[in-house]
Amino acid sequence: MYNPETIFAFIKQLFHKIGCNDEDASTVAGVLLAAELRGIESHGILRIPDYYNLWKSKRINTHPNIRVVHETPSTAVVDGDSALGMIAGKKAMQIAIDKSKAVGTGWVSVRNSNHFGIAGYYAMMALKNDMIGITMTNANPLVAPTFSVDRMLGTNPIAVAVPAGQQPPYVADFATTPIARGKLDLMHKKGLKAPLGYVQDAEGKPSDDPNILTQGGAILPLGGDREHGSHKGYCLGSIVDIFSAVFSGAGYGPWVPPSVAYLPVLQNDEVKGTGHFFGAMRIDAFRPADEFKAAMDKWILDFRNAKPAKGFEKVLIPGDPEREMEEIRKKEGIPMMPALVEKINQIAKELGIDEM
Amino acid sequence: MYNPETIFAFIKQLFHKIGCNDEDASTVAGVLLAAELRGIESHGILRIPDYYNLWKSKRINTHPNIRVVHETPSTAVVDGDSALGMIAGKKAMQIAIDKSKAVGTGWVSVRNSNHFGIAGYYAMMALKNDMIGITMTNANPLVAPTFSVDRMLGTNPIAVAVPAGQQPPYVADFATTPIARGKLDLMHKKGLKAPLGYVQDAEGKPSDDPNILTQGGAILPLGGDREHGSHKGYCLGSIVDIFSAVFSGAGYGPWVPPSVAYLPVLQNDEVKGTGHFFGAMRIDAFRPADEFKAAMDKWILDFRNAKPAKGFEKVLIPGDPEREMEEIRKKEGIPMMPALVEKINQIAKELGIDEM
Repeated sequence: MYNPETIFAFIKQLFHKIGCNDEDASTVAGVLLAAELRGIESHGILRIPDYYNLWKSKRINTHPNIRVVHETPSTAVVDGDSALGMIAGKKAMQIAIDKSKAVGTGWVSVRNSNHFGIAGYYAMMALKNDMIGITMTNANPLVAPTFSVDRMLGTNPIAVAVPAGQQPPYVADFATTPIARGKLDLMHKKGLKAPLGYVQDAEGKPSDDPNILTQGGAILPLGGDREHGSHKGYCLGSIVDIFSAVFSGAGYGPWVPPSVAYLPVLQNDEVKGTGHFFGAMRIDAFRPADEFKAAMDKWILDFRNAKPAKGFEKVLIPGDPEREMEEIRKKEGIPMMPALVEKINQIAKELGIDEM
Repeated sequence: MYNPETIFAFIKQLFHKIGCNDEDASTVAGVLLAAELRGIESHGILRIPDYYNLWKSKRINTHPNIRVVHETPSTAVVDGDSALGMIAGKKAMQIAIDKSKAVGTGWVSVRNSNHFGIAGYYAMMALKNDMIGITMTNANPLVAPTFSVDRMLGTNPIAVAVPAGQQPPYVADFATTPIARGKLDLMHKKGLKAPLGYVQDAEGKPSDDPNILTQGGAILPLGGDREHGSHKGYCLGSIVDIFSAVFSGAGYGPWVPPSVAYLPVLQNDEVKGTGHFFGAMRIDAFRPADEFKAAMDKWILDFRNAKPAKGFEKVLIPGDPEREMEEIRKKEGIPMMPALVEKINQIAKELGIDEM
């Protein structure tokens, strides 16, 4: 078990060493630590080797000039200047929050960014400002639209965080696909079959092979097949893509750059990098904040007290499992696979910094 | 086949007769006709008997005082004063559009409204203003959250309309469930089984009985079961509910009033009617409008030209099937089931107006 302070200090040191200033290195450490605490290890320390290799191949700029290139009182487009996504993302969400303070809501689309970790982190920044926070991002193309075999969309997540009063906040953070790539890899390693409805083969036929992505297959949109509403998952993933990339001029659909250095970036001079979308809505832009929070408490309690299905203990509010995990891990520490620690410490050695 | 002008005139006459002024009656006729033209008959003339019976039972007010009760430069809450949802909805969307003109985006939550027909109608109002339009609404509770047997959410649709340049616009309009209630009823009438993943029984077990809602069953969220991401569909449905009702003070979750007169309204003095949420975002609040439209054209063409799966002809852009249907029906007329025409003409007789 590793304690959160140790992890934060190690990550900060690492990103400082590759060029990030103090504030930016702290931002990266904060976002990755949040993923570890909330039990979303797929978006935590596991990603450091990818970020490091992208930096080594000069696809990540650790001295970015992140700037607003277009704006109105409630909107902005931000150019991330090839920054780490966490750095561009946190700055852009802060701009959305500031605009929301001024005119009720703020909406920021970002281009020329990179993988930004967990979407929920940025949405949750809104909570302490008594705002609803919204985050979207596009991602490497792995998902085929309904009726297609081409991988045109990423797992394009949506996060929405809603403040409450006495109750903990509502925090939804979900991919617009039934499954993430990381979980397919894990099934493959364990020799398991994938449930039908996760992936299709190169011809578009249902497949239970979790390794099918290496053979021209694709992840399916949320819904799985047309009969179960995959066209709705396709709508969701494409809305995320349009808000993140067509608003901003980022790489869209098949043009989102890979988040790993071993895959080449497709040439398209008209678009730039990965795209994100951030929103902040002041709750008192709709009704007095106390009144909203009291109503949200009632909403949460009504749903929490819904009758569980046979065999289940309780009905969850989005955000419950991650918050419960965070409470445990803050107390008991964060478990890490020895192989990952070894990999990370190899990078530390290369950089001449303290090992974790 | 009925021609669109005949249908419009008939609906307008009917709602005029029950008290709507000329403008409001035209609004109702326009929204219902749009559903018929776009092939979404479940939200067209079929609903007139329900609206009529709600009016007879004094749950719909045809002389509403629809007013803004709270606002900022980019937001408003509108009280629909028990209006027909189409009338409150169109006014609220126009407010969102006006706010977007002023500060880049506009966001309006509505309480004390009723069923408003197709969500896409309002989202599409944004298009001619070079804006992206967004619509959400909550609806009668029929959907059980993941792990629950209680019906806590409606099929809570989301619509997003995005303008393009040479290409027709992108128009997504979808329920956050795999299936609508109307289609289950149709399966039951035809003696068909429902595919697994649509509904569950009163204990929360998978069911293939399309009539299970009458025996304590529930519709499942998009995703179907937990393994296929139903918790993501639950997130989507609950976000729609929070934006539509917790922002505005409308009936939320189990407190959304029924859209049919034969079911009683549950008593809850703290909330009012059905809730909607509308958004409008000026495309030139993010980048020059021509640039956005050219980029959106490229997005659409890349997706339209994606390789179809074996056995499928082409990949669709959201909105394609409805637009194609509209072109056909504008030319050839609108088919209507004789039983429905008879039912509608019975109402015409009661009201002493011309039959259709």
